[in-house]
Amino acid sequence: MTDNQTRELYLEDVQPGMTFRSRDHVLDADQIVAFARQFDPQRFHLSEEGAQGSMFGTLAASGWHTAAITMSLLVDSIPIPTGVIGAGGEISWPKPTRPDDILHTESTFTDVKISRSKPHQGFITMETLTLNQHGEVRQKFVCTLVAFARNS
Amino acid sequence: MTDNQTRELYLEDVQPGMTFRSRDHVLDADQIVAFARQFDPQRFHLSEEGAQGSMFGTLAASGWHTAAITMSLLVDSIPIPTGVIGAGGEISWPKPTRPDDILHTESTFTDVKISRSKPHQGFITMETLTLNQHGEVRQKFVCTLVAFARNS
Repeated sequence: MTDNQTRELYLEDVQPGMTFRSRDHVLDADQIVAFARQFDPQRFHLSEEGAQGSMFGTLAASGWHTAAITMSLLVDSIPIPTGVIGAGGEISWPKPTRPDDILHTESTFTDVKISRSKPHQGFITMETLTLNQHGEVRQKFVCTLVAFARNS
Repeated sequence: MTDNQTRELYLEDVQPGMTFRSRDHVLDADQIVAFARQFDPQRFHLSEEGAQGSMFGTLAASGWHTAAITMSLLVDSIPIPTGVIGAGGEISWPKPTRPDDILHTESTFTDVKISRSKPHQGFITMETLTLNQHGEVRQKFVCTLVAFARNS
């Protein structure tokens, strides 16, 4: 992928087709269980034993944990100086995230729109895949980011 | 809203139009900052001072924090005994979540589909609003849940 992480991107610098790869995040069972205890306390996210007989079979991360890790990877890899600010998007988890996954994100800007009423402001459509070390997709997220012009 | 939380709902019990209200979650600045430090370390999620001059103006929760709290409220309020398991959905944050928000969810089943190839399995379309104590919508999430028949 092209490395677009070396400079700050304001609205006027953003081009469809730009791609961004994040660092790796090494997951483990402790992180999965800690997140689940706080936010998604269901048996298949809380222990290996609890996952047996469930749809997941073995311990699986909450989809929201995958989403939160994804955000931490985006903060480091998308160099928009006013912030990585999403208005919303479409999220899916084709396969559950597992304790031995090493996750990274690959993001592509697919569209850029300038606001007609506020021309210093714009919206970037970004597609982000969260993948493990084997290239298996754990999450797909297509979102709208808010961006601003350099001197706004 | 109708109280559908009093019994276990298997696939054959699920009807479009069923509604579910969660308990309340009392948010505060400490929770917002703790989540942001771990998953979304951007200045407007980390401190009041950092939020000044940003798009948010004052401290705002990460959208993924709102999503994670929403999940914890869904786990308690959607009585599907095999689990509240989402395959994905469409998420939006019309306004940022703030430190003094008391959040709850209001969910509606809008559609139910039985799998043609696996008739013991089905998919529920659920619309969930996450609201504060003033009825202001902090998140909208339309998702697909996986559900199973009683004796599957």
